[in-house]
Amino acid sequence: MGTVTAPWKQVLLNALESNSHLNHSSYFQLATIGSNGRPSNRSVVFRGFHENSDNILINTDTRTRKIEELKHCPFAEICWYFTDSWEQFRINGRIDIIDGSNPDSEKLQIREKSWFARSPRSRLQYLCPYPGLPHLSEEPQETSLDPSAGPVIEFCLLILDPEQVDYLNLKTNQRLMFTSTQSQIGEKCWTSERINP
Amino acid sequence: MGTVTAPWKQVLLNALESNSHLNHSSYFQLATIGSNGRPSNRSVVFRGFHENSDNILINTDTRTRKIEELKHCPFAEICWYFTDSWEQFRINGRIDIIDGSNPDSEKLQIREKSWFARSPRSRLQYLCPYPGLPHLSEEPQETSLDPSAGPVIEFCLLILDPEQVDYLNLKTNQRLMFTSTQSQIGEKCWTSERINP
Repeated sequence: MGTVTAPWKQVLLNALESNSHLNHSSYFQLATIGSNGRPSNRSVVFRGFHENSDNILINTDTRTRKIEELKHCPFAEICWYFTDSWEQFRINGRIDIIDGSNPDSEKLQIREKSWFARSPRSRLQYLCPYPGLPHLSEEPQETSLDPSAGPVIEFCLLILDPEQVDYLNLKTNQRLMFTSTQSQIGEKCWTSERINP
Repeated sequence: MGTVTAPWKQVLLNALESNSHLNHSSYFQLATIGSNGRPSNRSVVFRGFHENSDNILINTDTRTRKIEELKHCPFAEICWYFTDSWEQFRINGRIDIIDGSNPDSEKLQIREKSWFARSPRSRLQYLCPYPGLPHLSEEPQETSLDPSAGPVIEFCLLILDPEQVDYLNLKTNQRLMFTSTQSQIGEKCWTSERINP
């Protein structure tokens, strides 16, 4: 199975490069559908692409509401706005949830790799009290983790497989719609079209 | 009918003030539900609150996809991240679509006011070719508008009536959940609770 590089991926990598002086350039907004049928939207951090693919990695806590939501409806749309280059990427696709109970050993390896890519300090957030529950105590948790220890049970990897990317450049006022199709041999192919902004 | 000021509104106004040196601080991401049942997410511009209420104003073009989506499902969630103060507001509510055919004259007046609040130059965007359709011509449109003329038919005002606001401050690591209830006399009341981030 060959890999055809997604044509929007280089545009996104260029945007990341030209906005890399801004810490928040790796933040984007992830929209899902809530269990009540209403939209849900929050900022998350881009954790890179999975190897050479166009699949986007996100880390999250299994206890957050988005996990429940994605189990109910696996589709999501990223809105990623680059504040310095004035570029917007709307990336629509399906999300694969990979927690510690995943039966696929290859996926568990990707999860482990994503865990070790995090700084030991940032891994501690997964030991915090249950997100979204009432805050009970001001006392700092006494938490530490062996830097060589694998992912804790709360650590969850999300992999978004993009199906459509709507790119808008507000400086040039150009907009491109990238759409994927699946070829007969299961290869993802991309077409693009210039559309009105 | 009295008005109880929403407790999150002052927090939001403070965030706007402390990030006002950044042009993009008035941009937020608006998630809706697409006609295909998938989430949809895009950046839009904050056009202020409606008078003294906590209702959020957004301008858009009647020809954009979000109008069709909101007619199908009027609920939306704003995710507004302030890049300098590290504050996030997730504002969930119902959107009222006010286009030129609205039968309510009071709402038409709000729409007109929002139109005149825009710069004459920025009003021209509503004369552009149909958004999202294939781009046909590179030639600049010969467009002009009488600055005293009222809103064009493509100009649409959205009013989001917030029902829940999830506030997160990444500098202090504090998170507050604001929830509204409707009192017996139809007054919106807000409660807040500190929850785990």
